[in-house]
Amino acid sequence: MTEPLVYLNGQMLPASQASLKIFDAGVVLGATVTEMTRTFRHQPFRLEDHVSRLFRSLRYTRMDIGMTPEQLVAMSRELLTHNAALIEGDDDLGLIHFVTAGEYGSYVATRGTKVRSGPTVCVHTFPLPFALWADRLQYGAHVVTPSIRHVPPQCYDPKMKNRSRMHYYLADQEARLVDPQAIALLLDLDGNVTETSGANFLIVERGTIVSPTLRNTLPGISRAVVIELAEKLGIPFVERDFQVFSVMNADEALLTSTPYGVCPVIRINGVSIGDGRTGPVTSRLMSAWNELAGFDVAAQFVARAEAK
Amino acid sequence: MTEPLVYLNGQMLPASQASLKIFDAGVVLGATVTEMTRTFRHQPFRLEDHVSRLFRSLRYTRMDIGMTPEQLVAMSRELLTHNAALIEGDDDLGLIHFVTAGEYGSYVATRGTKVRSGPTVCVHTFPLPFALWADRLQYGAHVVTPSIRHVPPQCYDPKMKNRSRMHYYLADQEARLVDPQAIALLLDLDGNVTETSGANFLIVERGTIVSPTLRNTLPGISRAVVIELAEKLGIPFVERDFQVFSVMNADEALLTSTPYGVCPVIRINGVSIGDGRTGPVTSRLMSAWNELAGFDVAAQFVARAEAK
Amino acid sequence: MTEPLVYLNGQMLPASQASLKIFDAGVVLGATVTEMTRTFRHQPFRLEDHVSRLFRSLRYTRMDIGMTPEQLVAMSRELLTHNAALIEGDDDLGLIHFVTAGEYGSYVATRGTKVRSGPTVCVHTFPLPFALWADRLQYGAHVVTPSIRHVPPQCYDPKMKNRSRMHYYLADQEARLVDPQAIALLLDLDGNVTETSGANFLIVERGTIVSPTLRNTLPGISRAVVIELAEKLGIPFVERDFQVFSVMNADEALLTSTPYGVCPVIRINGVSIGDGRTGPVTSRLMSAWNELAGFDVAAQFVARAEAK
Amino acid sequence: MTEPLVYLNGQMLPASQASLKIFDAGVVLGATVTEMTRTFRHQPFRLEDHVSRLFRSLRYTRMDIGMTPEQLVAMSRELLTHNAALIEGDDDLGLIHFVTAGEYGSYVATRGTKVRSGPTVCVHTFPLPFALWADRLQYGAHVVTPSIRHVPPQCYDPKMKNRSRMHYYLADQEARLVDPQAIALLLDLDGNVTETSGANFLIVERGTIVSPTLRNTLPGISRAVVIELAEKLGIPFVERDFQVFSVMNADEALLTSTPYGVCPVIRINGVSIGDGRTGPVTSRLMSAWNELAGFDVAAQFVARAEAK
Amino acid sequence: MTEPLVYLNGQMLPASQASLKIFDAGVVLGATVTEMTRTFRHQPFRLEDHVSRLFRSLRYTRMDIGMTPEQLVAMSRELLTHNAALIEGDDDLGLIHFVTAGEYGSYVATRGTKVRSGPTVCVHTFPLPFALWADRLQYGAHVVTPSIRHVPPQCYDPKMKNRSRMHYYLADQEARLVDPQAIALLLDLDGNVTETSGANFLIVERGTIVSPTLRNTLPGISRAVVIELAEKLGIPFVERDFQVFSVMNADEALLTSTPYGVCPVIRINGVSIGDGRTGPVTSRLMSAWNELAGFDVAAQFVARAEAK
Amino acid sequence: MTEPLVYLNGQMLPASQASLKIFDAGVVLGATVTEMTRTFRHQPFRLEDHVSRLFRSLRYTRMDIGMTPEQLVAMSRELLTHNAALIEGDDDLGLIHFVTAGEYGSYVATRGTKVRSGPTVCVHTFPLPFALWADRLQYGAHVVTPSIRHVPPQCYDPKMKNRSRMHYYLADQEARLVDPQAIALLLDLDGNVTETSGANFLIVERGTIVSPTLRNTLPGISRAVVIELAEKLGIPFVERDFQVFSVMNADEALLTSTPYGVCPVIRINGVSIGDGRTGPVTSRLMSAWNELAGFDVAAQFVARAEAK
Repeated sequence: MTEPLVYLNGQMLPASQASLKIFDAGVVLGATVTEMTRTFRHQPFRLEDHVSRLFRSLRYTRMDIGMTPEQLVAMSRELLTHNAALIEGDDDLGLIHFVTAGEYGSYVATRGTKVRSGPTVCVHTFPLPFALWADRLQYGAHVVTPSIRHVPPQCYDPKMKNRSRMHYYLADQEARLVDPQAIALLLDLDGNVTETSGANFLIVERGTIVSPTLRNTLPGISRAVVIELAEKLGIPFVERDFQVFSVMNADEALLTSTPYGVCPVIRINGVSIGDGRTGPVTSRLMSAWNELAGFDVAAQFVARAEAK
Repeated sequence: MTEPLVYLNGQMLPASQASLKIFDAGVVLGATVTEMTRTFRHQPFRLEDHVSRLFRSLRYTRMDIGMTPEQLVAMSRELLTHNAALIEGDDDLGLIHFVTAGEYGSYVATRGTKVRSGPTVCVHTFPLPFALWADRLQYGAHVVTPSIRHVPPQCYDPKMKNRSRMHYYLADQEARLVDPQAIALLLDLDGNVTETSGANFLIVERGTIVSPTLRNTLPGISRAVVIELAEKLGIPFVERDFQVFSVMNADEALLTSTPYGVCPVIRINGVSIGDGRTGPVTSRLMSAWNELAGFDVAAQFVARAEAK
Repeated sequence: MTEPLVYLNGQMLPASQASLKIFDAGVVLGATVTEMTRTFRHQPFRLEDHVSRLFRSLRYTRMDIGMTPEQLVAMSRELLTHNAALIEGDDDLGLIHFVTAGEYGSYVATRGTKVRSGPTVCVHTFPLPFALWADRLQYGAHVVTPSIRHVPPQCYDPKMKNRSRMHYYLADQEARLVDPQAIALLLDLDGNVTETSGANFLIVERGTIVSPTLRNTLPGISRAVVIELAEKLGIPFVERDFQVFSVMNADEALLTSTPYGVCPVIRINGVSIGDGRTGPVTSRLMSAWNELAGFDVAAQFVARAEAK
Repeated sequence: MTEPLVYLNGQMLPASQASLKIFDAGVVLGATVTEMTRTFRHQPFRLEDHVSRLFRSLRYTRMDIGMTPEQLVAMSRELLTHNAALIEGDDDLGLIHFVTAGEYGSYVATRGTKVRSGPTVCVHTFPLPFALWADRLQYGAHVVTPSIRHVPPQCYDPKMKNRSRMHYYLADQEARLVDPQAIALLLDLDGNVTETSGANFLIVERGTIVSPTLRNTLPGISRAVVIELAEKLGIPFVERDFQVFSVMNADEALLTSTPYGVCPVIRINGVSIGDGRTGPVTSRLMSAWNELAGFDVAAQFVARAEAK
Repeated sequence: MTEPLVYLNGQMLPASQASLKIFDAGVVLGATVTEMTRTFRHQPFRLEDHVSRLFRSLRYTRMDIGMTPEQLVAMSRELLTHNAALIEGDDDLGLIHFVTAGEYGSYVATRGTKVRSGPTVCVHTFPLPFALWADRLQYGAHVVTPSIRHVPPQCYDPKMKNRSRMHYYLADQEARLVDPQAIALLLDLDGNVTETSGANFLIVERGTIVSPTLRNTLPGISRAVVIELAEKLGIPFVERDFQVFSVMNADEALLTSTPYGVCPVIRINGVSIGDGRTGPVTSRLMSAWNELAGFDVAAQFVARAEAK
Repeated sequence: MTEPLVYLNGQMLPASQASLKIFDAGVVLGATVTEMTRTFRHQPFRLEDHVSRLFRSLRYTRMDIGMTPEQLVAMSRELLTHNAALIEGDDDLGLIHFVTAGEYGSYVATRGTKVRSGPTVCVHTFPLPFALWADRLQYGAHVVTPSIRHVPPQCYDPKMKNRSRMHYYLADQEARLVDPQAIALLLDLDGNVTETSGANFLIVERGTIVSPTLRNTLPGISRAVVIELAEKLGIPFVERDFQVFSVMNADEALLTSTPYGVCPVIRINGVSIGDGRTGPVTSRLMSAWNELAGFDVAAQFVARAEAK
């Protein structure tokens, strides 16, 4: 079969047939938890860590998928093996897990019994967004702090990777008013820097990497890799609340996320960070990441973006 | 054709074939705005008001569906005519509109061009949740204030009817720990009463209906109907921030929402409201609503619930 | 004498000689309260109201200028008579009052005794900013909500017209990133709409003018005129907290401030308000204002802007 | 020339001629960033650090003064050399840098073109406030927490040393109601201790110096010196949010600021801290500071205060 | 019997024998709700209203005292009849009701069974604090806003008259640092004016009485009387959040509470309100109150204070 | 004498005679600070630490009891010696200190002079609540986060052990709606986990004990013991704000408090923590505590609970 497979509620389906009922809780409420993993040379990177975090989100939402983490990892690897065989050698895949609260009882579209189903479980792959990040990886990204604020943990906790993300959608729209390439960097209700819609955000001050505290941010798997790499490279890493002032006056800033690992940020709200170019700490982290990956990740983005 | 129809992105489909791509922004981000209308004797109630509010939500999210409100109303009526013909005379339908931000560019599941689609527009019907509300309409509902708080408008505005509702899901879970029939009544970040996951909440104090302010609540269409009915009945209606203390000491409390119109609330956090029975103002509102509907709505819920 | 006069601490000086010591509290701390009045046909408009508000600010800051409101009005009129004689008949003047906490004792720039002076009192005129507003009055202004928030009253009360306005400066910079002509519309710490750096902001909903509450906004003299005019015109005027959602979905929006009276606002964060043109209520208010002024104010702005 | 010089926008002027136009943004908006350095034996202390912090404030406000830090340091030293020659050997000077957003376009006091000027840059000296602090250095200061709260960083960041300080002015007035010598110790919006209008505030608990976090406080240069001295003396230094309870129960409390270095605090809200006298850690810091200065700083304050 | 009686848990005791066990929840937790009524010419004023409010507090705390409001009123009148017979004709009494959560199970001081008792119910009289208020009623009170804030309703609702009032105690201590006669006027967490430890606070603006909203204040019985009197006198009464700025600039300010009815406030934080004397609206309210009482209440305070 | 003694204001009384006047500030206002110590084999544990913390609370409330900590310790030991002689060898006692603001002047119940008394000082013993905790110590406790929030330090500081605890009372009532054995775990106004009404709350993450910061929690003496024991056992201990998400996903959770030392927590809001059983770190801490106590504390609870 030449089409990627999708796992959906116990079945392996061709991607073109995978879809959610319009009365699924994932559609109706955004009551969905999720994970995104990527491959390096067709091998998933930190898959166990992603699955483990998914189970933390499941516990928070009290959803039970009837599988152990080990079973989910095994099944995901199988799926990846199949789907990766369909792409070129220098290409890679994103792997998505998502679990919704299931078919929403009171919205059944056909007349029948009102039994509430269990969670909807889906695992699928997707092409990595090479074109979206190729330029940013080479030249640095621009972040903008919108007036929209991040949802605080007493509403629902950002430490759960979830899909009730209307604020991300609105925030990115505001950021793009400033610059079509800009990415929203959300502040929390107290004006502390949190994260972007797709990445953890870090700054570098006098050689130390500084991260927002985890109160209003996802404990990113890529962020955890950065911590490991920093330790290996002898770069101190600390957590602290900080605000826009500190970003503007940082020596460097960077994003860390699954698709690309590490991406330099060179501007915030139109103001250059440092000298407006990829800084030395960021470069070292990117190189170290490339070693983990086994190839130059940014170069892959550029090459694949051009290939399309 | 004996199956209900669903409108999806320009097409009328049999309900069994209507589904969302797994990389639709409605699935991926909960970036979805929505409306729910119901029929009385197969005629939609306040359809124009619902569509008009949908367009306010669309403006807030900067989505353009390429239709005027009038066109959407007309198409919805057509759909309803078809679908209502499939049900019994004393049955009624719910009508859902929802619009998502469209297929999410960077998550395309098959390899192809990255063109971002326009919004996903869907209109469908569903059986009303008679069984869910039959008892509550007869005997009164129990609300519980969970520790989970409502999302504030500086994150995304609850005046937009949207589907990033993970907090609703979590809040209702907490409420059900107290009582499996309980409904979560969300407080805002300052401890003011807001709304439930599906209805506006009102109290009655010395003959006056008191509503939370609209800061953290949906300006409900049913709530607007209550305002009209109250005016007709000579019952004062005011808006004011209030807290749990005032609910516990109210003479009556009620929910107002599309499926049932008005439903008495007789308990909060285990404490009886008034004498723990449907109060006189609530009864008058229910009667007046029945006149609008042309039949006894609560009785329909009871009858249809038993029919299943 | 052909130069405008400035009143400074008891003296009438030629404008070119009026300046503040670098160790004045107005320079060192921004500990300054102020007022701006304008003339219509060389006569000051609501001068008594402005002076009266200045005295409320003085009481809040515990400054005593050793003059009664009546004395300050009389002196201001004298100054205006002199300065207005220097301009053309179709031109008008702005009149500024400001009072600082006086020379700051511990920062004396020359060696001497440390006696703290009384407040610094200054009254001066300035050319109205015709060029800045001519286009906005004709075609409508664009407001943008920046990430910078308004200072809350528990820090220092925005009901005092003061000059510790670093947040205005920063907010307008953020707004201009979106559009060089945009004006910052500041939100308060809870995400409620407040005011711009120079004007009160109002919206029109179904024929009613809606104003933010006065918690985080200046009780503008022009706003008070709008209330009077609205009453005369039979347009309801209410105060209520509202958020960006309501501005986006308002029928009209407008600014009201001393230099121009009323100015239409046609866009917020890139989204059109109403149909994106000056609305009927705004037009009626502008006309009514013109009657008060005795001429077409917007036309004056356009004419004088071109004259320069 | 026997008068001190002031640098103002490219010119060296006699102090008596240095003043700001009344329509300068520093006067009109408090849109001013600043620094204060002092001399020890006529040599500036940590001048480079102060200038470096000034440039961080400039970046935050997007002001460009057209000079490098090095150029500003060199010019400041020149100015100091001239001005210090006018004072006695045991006297010292304060050195002020301030930059405003420049002449405010729309407030031009004479009729002319509306070109917005660049920033206003001023460097000047002033006599140190010996009399103000002599007693406090000997016997300890009294701090009072007023009801006025510190401006939070989402309005404008206290990490920028700025002159929109109306809240300082109001807070000190409230403190002086309790005791004419009292200094306001501002709380943030959450009730955490921040700083006074002129100094960082520190407490000592069981031998450890505890500082508020930097969220709502200036990262003081003197505070940085205290950190250095503490390290040298083997005294632990930590940052942590704390509240009035912890100040009342601290073993010692102290202020650290440019004019005097370190000053003991012996009372808060009328309650003695420790035994109400200068504590051992404070004494050691004062002694260590004296070594840096090359003389007894507190003694200089007492002697010079009496000399006047 | 010449000693006043106290009702305690079903018994009438001589006052000297009335006391609470040291392990009563009222002692251990401050878990107590309360009311204070006073007599005019030995007749209780609005006793039914006070008892009715007590029952609202009981409902909020889920305490059941096993009596109806009518029974409690009857018993209270009996007690009053007995106790009032012991005082002079021109003297009056305060009447206290309080209910605690009862003996706290786990703190039993003697070894025995751990049965939790029902609530502790106590009704007693006390001499009115004439000396405390005589001067304030004649010359006006001074209020001070301390740094201590009022407890918000999401912790426990100030609409319940309760005895967990450590913040009152602390706030009054801060106020007395400014002036030994000063009364603390508590701000809420947002800086809005709320109430004093013993009274509702009102201001008068251009002939209208303005009250804080009820979010953070007790719905006072005396305040309700003021509303009645204002209506009778044709004085408008509105509710609105306001801050210190508005108090400083009010025409008048006043306290309203059970012991004295209405008391003028002439100063806040050292600043005069209006002309610093009892204003005309306050005077009219005091006169109208005297009519209700049947005598001059302030004069009673002065006379009785001198009598002691 | 076979009755326990109580120290009350300078006197040693039989417990049955110890009570508070109904107009004591501890009854009227909850203006009370307190401590609870327990004995191990009839010897008080960390009595000096408890008394020392009491004196910190006294300083915060400005109460002066006219005794040194040493005198209070000595007197408390005397009292204990007497009272412990009355119980069995395997039984133990709780020891309470509490100090109220004294008899409340204006509420004097008999007619007399209005002299305000000094603080009320009371020391007494009580039987430990063995029955209440026996099951929890064996099988683990269930905590529930109620909608009621902890009082923030800007109202009155939870670092002072005090008795204005109406929120504890209300919070525990809400928790018991979920499960009659559940204990309320209070969140602060920002949704951070704080403490229960009687204990500090800790979690274990990957071998590290994590405590909430001290902003909104009591610096518990038992918590300090846990820190000591953890150090001895080589278990890292850190302070950090955390939320419900982290509790649900912790490996273990525990309470620490005077009566029992350490108690496992196995459920939060109905969700199991870890595998729902006492975890290894908790077990090690309990064992180490038993070594300090000289016997198995949990076993004592079980044995004594059964004995009753």
